[in-house]
Amino acid sequence: MAGEVEVKARVESREKLAKKIESLGGRFTREVAQEDVYFIHPCRNLRERDEALRLRREGGECILTFKGKRVGKEAKIREEIEVRVDDFEATQNIFSQLGFEKLFIIRKSRKDFLLDGATISLDSVEGLGEFVEIEVMVPSMKKDIVEDANHMQELKRKLFAIAERLEVPTERLTTESYLEMLASKSSSSIDRR
Amino acid sequence: MAGEVEVKARVESREKLAKKIESLGGRFTREVAQEDVYFIHPCRNLRERDEALRLRREGGECILTFKGKRVGKEAKIREEIEVRVDDFEATQNIFSQLGFEKLFIIRKSRKDFLLDGATISLDSVEGLGEFVEIEVMVPSMKKDIVEDANHMQELKRKLFAIAERLEVPTERLTTESYLEMLASKSSSSIDRR
Repeated sequence: MAGEVEVKARVESREKLAKKIESLGGRFTREVAQEDVYFIHPCRNLRERDEALRLRREGGECILTFKGKRVGKEAKIREEIEVRVDDFEATQNIFSQLGFEKLFIIRKSRKDFLLDGATISLDSVEGLGEFVEIEVMVPSMKKDIVEDANHMQELKRKLFAIAERLEVPTERLTTESYLEMLASKSSSSIDRR
Repeated sequence: MAGEVEVKARVESREKLAKKIESLGGRFTREVAQEDVYFIHPCRNLRERDEALRLRREGGECILTFKGKRVGKEAKIREEIEVRVDDFEATQNIFSQLGFEKLFIIRKSRKDFLLDGATISLDSVEGLGEFVEIEVMVPSMKKDIVEDANHMQELKRKLFAIAERLEVPTERLTTESYLEMLASKSSSSIDRR
């Protein structure tokens, strides 16, 4: 199972940061509209377990993702299981029939860049604002790799070094997800579970 | 949402029936190995609700299907919601992480024929034997169509007429699913839910 190690930070201007990335030799790879549906499990508190089930539509593709518990503090490290599905509505219908409810829909526009082996995403998130996300993919999230403190420390150092090159202040970096930010904005609806 | 109207019957020999179908003008369309994983819901008794969640692998394809409650008696009529997924193992892993367990895996070899607008499947099911399944797809399972007794009666008549042409005795026709047949064979394991 693959995983991701990431940090994000609120930014003033995506345009300014895009120029900065390119001036450092970063390469623009894509711009895509993403629509993320997060589900409420019929009998498990995914939020309490720090897990999430997400159905993403981006471009013509739909991806269903289970996100496992975070294991990092300074950088967000979590297991992800992904499958591509061919029908966004039908997938929602199947989960609805199984008793899952929609928790939130997060819509964002994302611009991706490659820099120093990391993916840098400049996101404009509906209702939240503009963010930079720096992410390194980990091919396997096997226990021995995650528990290899040296290896994880090295990945975190890499993310922090990139943030520094982008002149994103370390104190602004967060491991909070957009889902959590939206949830704390409208805490009444998330408190249902 | 699409649906299916079907009946099945145990047969002595797939080969003999295949010849019969072709002698009646039926057209062979495909032969495929199918592996069906049925899931136990973490907090709903799908069996009691007469629902099912199935992940099928056939040829290079994987299809996730929610099957709704049966509404017919003589012929099996049920709503189906389907999505194609691109990874059989990952899909199982996602459901496993969500607390779903595997109930049964049904493996069969299926030969499909088209005759009189119906799909005729000749199945050899591991642990169960050989069967013929006669199925008509219904493009929409909207309430008004299912409740249109005349229309449903007509579809059933069509299935029964085909069974007669195939010389499958009416008293052998059943709406029981392979899942139910396997479950009653090994009732100890299904009684867990």
